[in-house]
Amino acid sequence: MIKDPSELPDLTVHYFEQRVDHFGFHKRDTFRQRYLIYDKDFTEGGPIFFYCGGEMFIEIHAKQTGLMFTWAKEFKALLVFAEHRYYGDSMPYGETSFYGSERRGYLSAEQALADYATLSAHLKANRTGTTKSDLIVWGSGYSGMLAVWMRVKYPHLVKLAYASSAPVGYYSGEVPCGKFLKAVTAVFKSESDSCAQSIRRVWNVLQTMASSRNGMMFLAEAFNTCQPVRGDNISNLYRWLKESFRTISMLDFPYETDLFGKLPAYPVKEACNHLWNHQQTERDLMRATHRAVSVLYNHTGEVVCYSLDNTLRNNAGWGFQACTELIMPVCSDGIEDMFNPKPWDLRRVQRKCMNKFGVWPDPNRLRRIFGGASGLTNVENIIVTNNQRDPWYDGGILTGNEGVTVISIRNGAHGHDMRTPHEKDPISVTWARSRVRAVLRRTVSPLLNYVLG
Amino acid sequence: MIKDPSELPDLTVHYFEQRVDHFGFHKRDTFRQRYLIYDKDFTEGGPIFFYCGGEMFIEIHAKQTGLMFTWAKEFKALLVFAEHRYYGDSMPYGETSFYGSERRGYLSAEQALADYATLSAHLKANRTGTTKSDLIVWGSGYSGMLAVWMRVKYPHLVKLAYASSAPVGYYSGEVPCGKFLKAVTAVFKSESDSCAQSIRRVWNVLQTMASSRNGMMFLAEAFNTCQPVRGDNISNLYRWLKESFRTISMLDFPYETDLFGKLPAYPVKEACNHLWNHQQTERDLMRATHRAVSVLYNHTGEVVCYSLDNTLRNNAGWGFQACTELIMPVCSDGIEDMFNPKPWDLRRVQRKCMNKFGVWPDPNRLRRIFGGASGLTNVENIIVTNNQRDPWYDGGILTGNEGVTVISIRNGAHGHDMRTPHEKDPISVTWARSRVRAVLRRTVSPLLNYVLG
Repeated sequence: MIKDPSELPDLTVHYFEQRVDHFGFHKRDTFRQRYLIYDKDFTEGGPIFFYCGGEMFIEIHAKQTGLMFTWAKEFKALLVFAEHRYYGDSMPYGETSFYGSERRGYLSAEQALADYATLSAHLKANRTGTTKSDLIVWGSGYSGMLAVWMRVKYPHLVKLAYASSAPVGYYSGEVPCGKFLKAVTAVFKSESDSCAQSIRRVWNVLQTMASSRNGMMFLAEAFNTCQPVRGDNISNLYRWLKESFRTISMLDFPYETDLFGKLPAYPVKEACNHLWNHQQTERDLMRATHRAVSVLYNHTGEVVCYSLDNTLRNNAGWGFQACTELIMPVCSDGIEDMFNPKPWDLRRVQRKCMNKFGVWPDPNRLRRIFGGASGLTNVENIIVTNNQRDPWYDGGILTGNEGVTVISIRNGAHGHDMRTPHEKDPISVTWARSRVRAVLRRTVSPLLNYVLG
Repeated sequence: MIKDPSELPDLTVHYFEQRVDHFGFHKRDTFRQRYLIYDKDFTEGGPIFFYCGGEMFIEIHAKQTGLMFTWAKEFKALLVFAEHRYYGDSMPYGETSFYGSERRGYLSAEQALADYATLSAHLKANRTGTTKSDLIVWGSGYSGMLAVWMRVKYPHLVKLAYASSAPVGYYSGEVPCGKFLKAVTAVFKSESDSCAQSIRRVWNVLQTMASSRNGMMFLAEAFNTCQPVRGDNISNLYRWLKESFRTISMLDFPYETDLFGKLPAYPVKEACNHLWNHQQTERDLMRATHRAVSVLYNHTGEVVCYSLDNTLRNNAGWGFQACTELIMPVCSDGIEDMFNPKPWDLRRVQRKCMNKFGVWPDPNRLRRIFGGASGLTNVENIIVTNNQRDPWYDGGILTGNEGVTVISIRNGAHGHDMRTPHEKDPISVTWARSRVRAVLRRTVSPLLNYVLG
């Protein structure tokens, strides 16, 4: 994790005291929410670009959202990156934030939105030159969903929301469960059919090997795991590989990136370079698979071994939200996708969540509260970009209306348009940015446009 | 209190199970919210007229909102009157709902709005013929504020909000504290200067009499109190008289009404008939004042005596909300108004609330969450009517924009336009209704307009 803000030049770290419960008057606890500020380009009256933090350390968001820095100069904007409660260093009860429902029970999107509303009102009331500043909320992925919802729920505070690759539809249950893994498959297929076919073989081979002691020993060696592979952790190997392919397919940028560690340019191509022969022996396939996922986890060769206790989103917060409000139906059939067949079983998920957190997922909750992707009506000043080379694409807000501007980006990866502009960006990404920029120029206060010239 | 729904023809009583806390996942308690339905005029696809209950029994709202019944036929609408949590028979913890902050702490406007969102979604999902129905929310007074906020917070559920006499500005701290009692005074002055001058004398006379045993005995006799007037309840007599004048000034309808008991037509005139001589003796003034407030409390002559333990809004719910979010600055100077001079002292209110409920009023909270009256921007499909012969007028949403239609009603009393049309209604009220009706006709689904012809 990147936890050192000094990597991000001129960002300062701040804390703001928030109520743990914004909606009732029983719980009087407060906590310190962390946020980052960049004000080097700000001029009085310029807009506030406010990033609605999501499921990770806020510095990671800041690093992935270079466009805010690029545009800060032009718009004379103040940049704010606000960390989401129960993530990063914004833990309401420190290390015990997930102990017991009376502690973790205040992790929800609506509470996070209320944090952002309170913080932005505080900033406008207290930071010099911001009283008349337009508040423009930004976000990508889950953060993008939050940005959209900020505009929906706090129209009097938020002038405009700009969301990139925000899969509202997936989490609102509006997309068939098979879509997502089909889309992951499509990204690999677009590189080569053999690559996708190789990956489809992986799961059966894994199962076969996992049934013998020799096989498990081979797997431990082939995947360089820190622990022996056993019956009780083999499912973690499955999940880890699956998540690796999902993640690689999201982050198929045309240049080297650094999100969860360094990733080469065109990582799907890099991974598929190891998986071009889908007819190799089982052992060779496993070794090749290891090299393929190493593209994601060990591009720089620094990782000594892979822990089977660790997964990418190994944070309690996301696990809890996936059990309360962010319920995404996912299934695979192994035919139209390259994964092992697995149906979507809501009851199973519900029972699991009840056991783990004492909560019963309500799959209609999110849509009822926020309207979903297809029901985003009677709102305005929302810009949504959907990157088509991103498996999350199908869950995006795909249909615009007079209040919602939808921009499709043909060759963009997940959240592509919000990254620092790069010479290797596809023309579709560059064009999308210029459209967003034009809407922003039209929307921020006319006075400022005069100042901007 | 009118608690017998049989007084309201064809209304049926229903209950819906709501979560006590909609925004977190710790509190798993539920309660039964009461609501009334009128479906005799409903046709498939017709709109749902949904009344957002406020600080009283829901039947009272239904009785005061005859216009919904009048228009139900024309619009083929389903009528729903939803009771506000912690009021009427919708007590989350029965008689102990206000015992301890972990019980009363879930009384808030936002929780009530979430109740309405959940209930309306439930109705649309389960009631035959309502799937495509437009949801039109109604409300007057605090209910009107809730109706506006329903449209602000749940634009995907609510097609249009129609709010009458909704004093958002008063409770958002946007109006000088002296305005309200000046406006009450103006209503009495408009009847006669002498009347307002008489009332202005009342407070000093009360104070003088309260300083002697004889005086207090006289007051008990003059006001026909059930208890002896003593040093420890004299302030209730003050408050009771003050509230009486406030209430009479709100309800100055041109025909007999029945809200908290029967009230004659033009009650301000009736009250002032007893107070035309501001130079009468102190004892005569007290007797005359008694007759004046009896217009409100004893129009039918059935009240045996007045209890000094009782005030109009003697409900714990309102007291709590006035300490948490509905903080209305009120003051009087005795010069521009007819009341005893009393400054607005926020700290005093805050200390009182802390002692009583363990909460510390935040006067900026409401405006931050909902935008206030002047900051109602970036929303649409809101119709607001402001009745000018209503002391709440100055706190209304007075400035419209392209999304907010504001209609001023010159001679309307509090919530006048939402009452059953009456031959004695001023032309301004009738005209306002026809404007609202036109907007509604334009807004409800075009298909329905075809059906309506």
